[in-house]
Amino acid sequence: MRTTMSWQAEGPAATLRRTPLKRRDLRPDDLAVRVDYCGVCHTDLHAVNAREEGQPLVPGHEFTGVVTERGAGVTDFVVGDAVAVGNIVDSCGTCAMCRAGQENFCHAFPTLTYGGVDRHDGTTTQGGYSREYVVRSRFAHPLPPGLDPAAAAPLLCAGVTVWEPLHALGVGPGSRVAVAGLGGLGHLAVKIAVALGAETSVISRSPDKADDAHRLGAHDVIVSTDADRMAAARDRFDVVIDTIAAPHDLGPYLRLVAMDGTLSHLGHLGSVTVETTDLLIGRKSLSSAGSGGRPATAAMLAFCAEHDITADIELLPSARVNEALDRLRRNDVRYRFVLDMSDLD
Amino acid sequence: MRTTMSWQAEGPAATLRRTPLKRRDLRPDDLAVRVDYCGVCHTDLHAVNAREEGQPLVPGHEFTGVVTERGAGVTDFVVGDAVAVGNIVDSCGTCAMCRAGQENFCHAFPTLTYGGVDRHDGTTTQGGYSREYVVRSRFAHPLPPGLDPAAAAPLLCAGVTVWEPLHALGVGPGSRVAVAGLGGLGHLAVKIAVALGAETSVISRSPDKADDAHRLGAHDVIVSTDADRMAAARDRFDVVIDTIAAPHDLGPYLRLVAMDGTLSHLGHLGSVTVETTDLLIGRKSLSSAGSGGRPATAAMLAFCAEHDITADIELLPSARVNEALDRLRRNDVRYRFVLDMSDLD
Repeated sequence: MRTTMSWQAEGPAATLRRTPLKRRDLRPDDLAVRVDYCGVCHTDLHAVNAREEGQPLVPGHEFTGVVTERGAGVTDFVVGDAVAVGNIVDSCGTCAMCRAGQENFCHAFPTLTYGGVDRHDGTTTQGGYSREYVVRSRFAHPLPPGLDPAAAAPLLCAGVTVWEPLHALGVGPGSRVAVAGLGGLGHLAVKIAVALGAETSVISRSPDKADDAHRLGAHDVIVSTDADRMAAARDRFDVVIDTIAAPHDLGPYLRLVAMDGTLSHLGHLGSVTVETTDLLIGRKSLSSAGSGGRPATAAMLAFCAEHDITADIELLPSARVNEALDRLRRNDVRYRFVLDMSDLD
Repeated sequence: MRTTMSWQAEGPAATLRRTPLKRRDLRPDDLAVRVDYCGVCHTDLHAVNAREEGQPLVPGHEFTGVVTERGAGVTDFVVGDAVAVGNIVDSCGTCAMCRAGQENFCHAFPTLTYGGVDRHDGTTTQGGYSREYVVRSRFAHPLPPGLDPAAAAPLLCAGVTVWEPLHALGVGPGSRVAVAGLGGLGHLAVKIAVALGAETSVISRSPDKADDAHRLGAHDVIVSTDADRMAAARDRFDVVIDTIAAPHDLGPYLRLVAMDGTLSHLGHLGSVTVETTDLLIGRKSLSSAGSGGRPATAAMLAFCAEHDITADIELLPSARVNEALDRLRRNDVRYRFVLDMSDLD
């Protein structure tokens, strides 16, 4: 076993403490990665809140770093390569979904980057809030040159999560896209939709986000509490990407969708209720998205490199991880915290 | 005013009585239609059950007949033409939906064939359980020669309702389609999907419908209570058309949908609840359909004429309308009642 340092939740309090962490010895297809930057995702917050007492938890599933060692069978990376890892680190590889490059939908369930079950030794995976991660090389992505490794870290979860629906729904020049909610996911959805050539609007509760929305490239901002603007925007968008994290009524957002368009809502909201009339009138569709497979992640990284897209981040030394989680709890972040893990050396 | 005979609900009991009915004098763009055959739709049953006491109600919104008179401005029909009328008889004609040929989604709400509000005189429309209907010619469709007028009547509501999603979702040769529920809608969905070239399966609670399903052209039948068959059919269908009229859990049907596929559920179920995971895993969509616009209705009629598709009906003299409604209430129909209105002469 190898030993590294991590930020770990263990006791009853929802705070993380600096704690040594064991990593497995490298298998033939493994890479050891020095984690340099790890994004702070809403999922991390849920995991910390929901963890069972006595079960250690190291969150973190969007990180970038450098290969420090490789297993005997690895040929696609060399020591020193810049790499990026997202929220899954293994899958069965044989089911229809895996064969289609949608490892995120693996019928045997993908191995999550933390809180997952390793397919070989049955241990619980621990995440990227640590100085080293050992990952099957197939689930590491080369970090394209030119992308800032700190600001690129959130692409590996938030980025691919917004990329998937935009790409699957064929968003491109001429598409009319609305992004509901301007947070970690939403601000990347705006950047990517704009770069794809879509006419892009932001729907936000906060009028004070209008300047930011325009700076991110949005062509229009609709304040969701402005009933007149919402009514005027009825049937206006081919695609509405709903990034609002809390449970909410989908009706007002479905009504913004144009004939034959789609409301894609992101993340795991649990169950949602829709009025069938809101789908029926205008022949609209509801879909849901969250993360992506290996090919989508690679395509997203290539696209972001070509268009110079990274997250707008607030970079903190990893020792301030609890402050980051507290502020994320209060939605006090524009738009993603990234932890600099070098203080764990 | 003109006078005709109709089957009308008026008192507190949910039975229809033979009652004279006034029809408007023809406007320049009107046709007078002798109603020969009128289908009995689930909507009729809901309307009879839900009607307000004291409000007369003549149901019926899928009928065929013959033009007996035309308004001064009508050029597209002549007396003696066989025509068919569906569930809408007018719309604003100017909104984006009407301009797109989706009068069924008219922003100013389409005028329903019965229980609607006439756009000119404000009266409540009364339906096709009557010997004559006066209709704006734009909302009458020529009945293609070769289609039996009795068995064709249900095409005007049930037929276009299943046609819309099959057509909008691009079903054709090679598509894998499942039809959940084998009733008035479902049996037409099977016939049309098969004629479109799709590999078509039926999902039914009743094992005893298997023979019928195969006779209708279905290639496979899955009994929904057979957990093994349902599990084996996971991710198998590009399109699942859910025709089940009662509120039900959509989860088992969403799980049959293949990657990037769609569950389209028909009719007005009110609100439905879905687990976002059932949408997310496999990037699936939920949509809803009910009726269609003028162009879709015309296309459906042409397709059905070409492929010799009509409903499987039980033809009754209109005097047995209450028996038909009772049996429909108990789902005792294979697969659509049609009333022969000639006994109203």
